[in-house]
Amino acid sequence: MKYEALRESCALANKQLPATGLVDITFGNVSVYDPEEGVFAIKPSGVDYDVLTAKDIVVLDLEGEIVSGKLRPSSDTPTHRYLYRAFGEQGVRAVVHTHSRTAVAFAQAAMSIPHYGTTHCDYFNGPVPVTRTMTQEEVEGEYEWETGKVIAECYKKISPMEVPAVLVRNHGPFAWGPTPEKALETAFALEIVAEMGWKTRLLNPQAPTAPDYLLNKHYSRKHGKDAYYGQA
Amino acid sequence: MKYEALRESCALANKQLPATGLVDITFGNVSVYDPEEGVFAIKPSGVDYDVLTAKDIVVLDLEGEIVSGKLRPSSDTPTHRYLYRAFGEQGVRAVVHTHSRTAVAFAQAAMSIPHYGTTHCDYFNGPVPVTRTMTQEEVEGEYEWETGKVIAECYKKISPMEVPAVLVRNHGPFAWGPTPEKALETAFALEIVAEMGWKTRLLNPQAPTAPDYLLNKHYSRKHGKDAYYGQA
Amino acid sequence: MKYEALRESCALANKQLPATGLVDITFGNVSVYDPEEGVFAIKPSGVDYDVLTAKDIVVLDLEGEIVSGKLRPSSDTPTHRYLYRAFGEQGVRAVVHTHSRTAVAFAQAAMSIPHYGTTHCDYFNGPVPVTRTMTQEEVEGEYEWETGKVIAECYKKISPMEVPAVLVRNHGPFAWGPTPEKALETAFALEIVAEMGWKTRLLNPQAPTAPDYLLNKHYSRKHGKDAYYGQA
Amino acid sequence: MKYEALRESCALANKQLPATGLVDITFGNVSVYDPEEGVFAIKPSGVDYDVLTAKDIVVLDLEGEIVSGKLRPSSDTPTHRYLYRAFGEQGVRAVVHTHSRTAVAFAQAAMSIPHYGTTHCDYFNGPVPVTRTMTQEEVEGEYEWETGKVIAECYKKISPMEVPAVLVRNHGPFAWGPTPEKALETAFALEIVAEMGWKTRLLNPQAPTAPDYLLNKHYSRKHGKDAYYGQA
Repeated sequence: MKYEALRESCALANKQLPATGLVDITFGNVSVYDPEEGVFAIKPSGVDYDVLTAKDIVVLDLEGEIVSGKLRPSSDTPTHRYLYRAFGEQGVRAVVHTHSRTAVAFAQAAMSIPHYGTTHCDYFNGPVPVTRTMTQEEVEGEYEWETGKVIAECYKKISPMEVPAVLVRNHGPFAWGPTPEKALETAFALEIVAEMGWKTRLLNPQAPTAPDYLLNKHYSRKHGKDAYYGQA
Repeated sequence: MKYEALRESCALANKQLPATGLVDITFGNVSVYDPEEGVFAIKPSGVDYDVLTAKDIVVLDLEGEIVSGKLRPSSDTPTHRYLYRAFGEQGVRAVVHTHSRTAVAFAQAAMSIPHYGTTHCDYFNGPVPVTRTMTQEEVEGEYEWETGKVIAECYKKISPMEVPAVLVRNHGPFAWGPTPEKALETAFALEIVAEMGWKTRLLNPQAPTAPDYLLNKHYSRKHGKDAYYGQA
Repeated sequence: MKYEALRESCALANKQLPATGLVDITFGNVSVYDPEEGVFAIKPSGVDYDVLTAKDIVVLDLEGEIVSGKLRPSSDTPTHRYLYRAFGEQGVRAVVHTHSRTAVAFAQAAMSIPHYGTTHCDYFNGPVPVTRTMTQEEVEGEYEWETGKVIAECYKKISPMEVPAVLVRNHGPFAWGPTPEKALETAFALEIVAEMGWKTRLLNPQAPTAPDYLLNKHYSRKHGKDAYYGQA
Repeated sequence: MKYEALRESCALANKQLPATGLVDITFGNVSVYDPEEGVFAIKPSGVDYDVLTAKDIVVLDLEGEIVSGKLRPSSDTPTHRYLYRAFGEQGVRAVVHTHSRTAVAFAQAAMSIPHYGTTHCDYFNGPVPVTRTMTQEEVEGEYEWETGKVIAECYKKISPMEVPAVLVRNHGPFAWGPTPEKALETAFALEIVAEMGWKTRLLNPQAPTAPDYLLNKHYSRKHGKDAYYGQA
């Protein structure tokens, strides 16, 4: 079977989703991108995580053609495909979509997640943005593809590798990263940061965000050439 | 023993309730309807889920007569019976009642659950309604039967198969569906949607509901002739 | 060893506390009363639940004298003793004290728990009261005994068997019942009802309590001569 | 290998962190101080708790020199070091840092945790303070060392052994104690007290703190020469 390693990696990441507590029922999916082959692997639609195997994974090219696999891919596939086209050159190799509950609450409240503290700044170099409301034309047209487009609109002035997650309004979060493991960790950190931010805002609606110099300090402590967190 | 398959199906669904996290102590019950026989099976009152067996299940006809079983049926039995009479022709084959905590909070707050996002719209084609306050006559009369009646009042203009759950004011949720599995899934989705909606409203009391075209898109992505979610 | 059955019953109930999720660290204790012997058994102070055995249990009479046991009894012992003296004739045979988190929040907010819905009314025939602030003299005097006294003040016009739990202001809940099992169930139901009430109030600070006729209906469905919940 | 007992104690305490529910991913660390040797042991940076062993632990002196160990110490090491220098003479022998979610919310909301009730007063003889905002110079300079300094500023008028935890603004909690076990228990109690306080404040923003005489009573019930909680 072709794309064996890519399939295995994708199946494993999808099967890890339920243990993160980020997904309920079948509300979540992970895709993995191989830029050399120009293809990405994604979860089939509506299949339970615990019965999923590598051979169920669907592989598509960046035009949306299925190049391997017998099942119907996730209904969110065009969104993932848009993101690899838009962000692949910047290093995105995996995309995770969940309906994690507190991140969804921010998305439904039409609010970005403010960078209230260092837990946030360790992962995201600024607030996690929320997309604009999609128009009737976008929703009734190529809806999932247009979803990718409104996500990309948020990244005109910020880098997708520096703020590796977004909230799709009235829907929920997408997170990404250089590997499936890192994208899953970011999706998990996003929900924690959302919970902390939600509790903060309920305590004090005027709570200030972290000063810019603290944001820069924490983000650069973990990322870039001056990072000093972890073992070198 | 008569109605063996119906009893087994009903016992299994009731025994699955605690693992969903939707019920505490003995606050919940599932019934299953067989329209060909004109009977439904239901949990006996006050029996623990873990000791429940198929032979404990009580089977009644739509007039409320026990046709099989030795135990006293759930005190909520007349509500289930009302729902099969009112909604049976539209395809309702199982009813789940829980006191899941956030759905109860909406019921106690006398508020319907707004369709804030796509998780909601995937299951419910509009807000989940809350019943009116029951009158003293209704409560002191055939209380559980009248409970069914006030539920049905909410479905004069909406379809019970399109909005397969309701909140009984000062009480809690009832959910239903074409099979016990689907009714349990809907009861579970209802609590998730309630939690997301509760968190959303606390963040932003003016949060808008999803636009109608997004509601239609998501609901029809999963239901009806144009559905494209899951494997065909 | 004397009072073997009483000790066993008390040890078992205390050991069940952590699994209820109601207690953290060693913040909770259960006592059991034997009116024929005029004694009650209680957890020793500061001992972990998992190492607790029947022989560690302390037995005292209603004057507060230790009649059996080598360890120091719970620091809350005088409160339990007060409650057996005040409520023993009305049928109280076990008292459970926890710091369950949402019930504590109501106690700290100086608010009784309103009877918003039927989950509450199934257990408590009215709001769960909160005690008045204790005076400096009471706190600096026989503090734990005085705690029992301010609890009893709440029951001048209501029956301790109809509202079998109270919130001690700035402290937390005490629950009781005719058996240790029932007192534990009530302590658990109290926290559920507190959580539902807390979520209700945050959604709608003006949420009405259940009408009196609904309170009466649900309470009497489970209690007294007209009860019809459970197996006869 | 030198400092074997100190390393073992430190490794064990760090490995216990995840089971407390206080840390996610690798957001937390414990250090242990040996005043006779003038050194402290601390978790290496970014290492998972489940693979951590005593030989991975890093030992440093109070000047910040590594005296034993091959890995890079936690990035928070200078904060721990500051605390041993500032509080060591008062009996601090272990420091625990977590990002426990509700304590972080208070830190991000720039609010101390009020002593609303006895659960709090059993552990902390007054509110748990929140540090001031750190200046740009402090953050861009010796950030983690300066963090220790702003913590110590909060203890000019209060004793670190009487209020053995603090909230670093825009960051999260540090807790400490005379042993690693006690410091872990305090970090756990802090999160419980934060959750109770958060729920209290949402119910009633004007909730009064416990009267001084109740604070004194509960604190001295567990601490000092008149303590009568637990077995002597």
